[in-house]
Amino acid sequence: MTKSFTIPRSVEWNENYISLLDQQKLPLETEYIELRTVQDVWESITSLKVRGAPAIGITAAFGLALAAQNYEVESIQAFKTQLQKDRDYLASSRPTAVNLFWALDRMVRSVENATSINEAKTKLTHEAIRIQIEDEAVCRQIGEYALSLFKSNDKVLTICNAGSIATARYGTALAPFHLAKEKGINLQVFASETRPVLQGSRLTAWELKQSGVDVTLITDNMAAHTIAAKGITAVIVGADRITANGDTANKIGTYGLAILAKAFNIPFYVAAPLSTFDISLQSGKEIPIEERNPEEVTHINGHRIAPEGINVFNPAFDVTPNDLITAIITEEGILYNGEYKDSIANLFQ
Amino acid sequence: MTKSFTIPRSVEWNENYISLLDQQKLPLETEYIELRTVQDVWESITSLKVRGAPAIGITAAFGLALAAQNYEVESIQAFKTQLQKDRDYLASSRPTAVNLFWALDRMVRSVENATSINEAKTKLTHEAIRIQIEDEAVCRQIGEYALSLFKSNDKVLTICNAGSIATARYGTALAPFHLAKEKGINLQVFASETRPVLQGSRLTAWELKQSGVDVTLITDNMAAHTIAAKGITAVIVGADRITANGDTANKIGTYGLAILAKAFNIPFYVAAPLSTFDISLQSGKEIPIEERNPEEVTHINGHRIAPEGINVFNPAFDVTPNDLITAIITEEGILYNGEYKDSIANLFQ
Repeated sequence: MTKSFTIPRSVEWNENYISLLDQQKLPLETEYIELRTVQDVWESITSLKVRGAPAIGITAAFGLALAAQNYEVESIQAFKTQLQKDRDYLASSRPTAVNLFWALDRMVRSVENATSINEAKTKLTHEAIRIQIEDEAVCRQIGEYALSLFKSNDKVLTICNAGSIATARYGTALAPFHLAKEKGINLQVFASETRPVLQGSRLTAWELKQSGVDVTLITDNMAAHTIAAKGITAVIVGADRITANGDTANKIGTYGLAILAKAFNIPFYVAAPLSTFDISLQSGKEIPIEERNPEEVTHINGHRIAPEGINVFNPAFDVTPNDLITAIITEEGILYNGEYKDSIANLFQ
Repeated sequence: MTKSFTIPRSVEWNENYISLLDQQKLPLETEYIELRTVQDVWESITSLKVRGAPAIGITAAFGLALAAQNYEVESIQAFKTQLQKDRDYLASSRPTAVNLFWALDRMVRSVENATSINEAKTKLTHEAIRIQIEDEAVCRQIGEYALSLFKSNDKVLTICNAGSIATARYGTALAPFHLAKEKGINLQVFASETRPVLQGSRLTAWELKQSGVDVTLITDNMAAHTIAAKGITAVIVGADRITANGDTANKIGTYGLAILAKAFNIPFYVAAPLSTFDISLQSGKEIPIEERNPEEVTHINGHRIAPEGINVFNPAFDVTPNDLITAIITEEGILYNGEYKDSIANLFQ
């Protein structure tokens, strides 16, 4: 019997409902829920059923398209007023998610020149699907560039989930692994579990297993020994924000992996779309590091694992200095260490 | 109201019973159980209620002394036969624990020349107490030497639990923190939680909090960011085995911290008694690394956190090469980087 593998998708459009992978239930249950109202969509974003900036943007865009299909208004003006109201409602679901606002505003703009309600409804559906298709193309392109840096039988370490289920498809840091599988190239992936929220064990291990990639789970503190004992050949990670000089904010733990990669003399890659760059910031020093609820550290699944009243330091991200990054892989090509300032400036000219 | 702090002890002798801290229940419950029979003692070691090589040795020694108090035999020969039987029984509780065998054999030897049953019973009790007192003195001396390497307001990172509850008292890597507290010197400790078994959050955070040390819990992957953001001034760890050249096997994660310490140019210290050295091994390459049950990684408190059937790599220890270790702190003094081969050979001449 041949097991068939699929790269899992986070969100799909189905004309009168949105099918959404409930990431809160992973990895114990693989459940796709049906979102039928704008309230359903808002709730799925707020409750973190969908996560990953691109996936959230796509879900919100689908949500606005879905809502608009059912508007019972008389005029295109009334339609646009209602659309703006739903745009604002969906925008309130995650207050700091750039992709969310970007996708919703693009949706609203797409019907600026619409003259009929039917035209507007069609345009909204098409625009939402276009946002998804474009993101998939970006991710696939990042994956192609990343894959050009690997060779068959490479052993690659990653952290967190910069994966298919965080985007339209393929993901960023995980894209080369899905593509390699499609092309019959063997890559062996080691996924760091990523405490405190365990995106590595809950999501990346699950996602790569679904698509048939050879993946092995380790705890975060096993990275050094694993690099040495298993002969890891490269580290690849995603990014939350990249500044004008290439400094990269990403999930806590990334900085430590970059230092290990340098110590073991193996490349350390960041894979991220252009939308992740924030060239208004000159360096990583300007990136504020969010500190989250201590209970993420002291509890797992609601179960206390640390003494009551203990002091906790719980930074959600760290900043990897550009000099530790061998290359930054974007959909426009690969940027190399030593040239980040110029090559990033060129990208945004 | 002044809160009173105490350095917790793992095990105490009480003439007709042994009082033992149940480390399996930490940090949720602080429960001292009473061991009244040699079977109780065997079970407490087997079920990991007591852990830490020195603490296990002391508990076993107390167990043998306790058992012997109740021997109803007619001759010293019969007494010694019974003692050997109980020695073998207790030795079967943890098959690879060097301190366990060492303590039990020392107990048996202590009555070799005893001529009466009463004399033997007294000697056994005294020998067990002596083993505990000696270990406390060793730990205190390690703590004094370690403390000489720190200054007030230092911020020190540690991993796992090389603490008071793993020894007679004070511990090894944690000894300087308990001593600093006794002496009114302020040290700020950051405890890495130490996945997969969480000795850092369950034991070290609890132990240091009990004794009033300023301790903050982090997850293992926060080490690099914490060193940078909090200004960590040193790392100190215990050891499971140190070879003739200073290579040090310790809890998984230690190696990564040593690499980070070097990258941040802060000292990396190993604190360990002479009994931890294995000079029959020339280097860390000869140390076999135990791989443990994958469920330690995939489950926490019996709760699954990773997908079913996922591949797991679960090494329990790693080996830190001697060139990354700034100094090894023993009860006989401090050994420095660059001189390990000679200074270790001298220690065992």
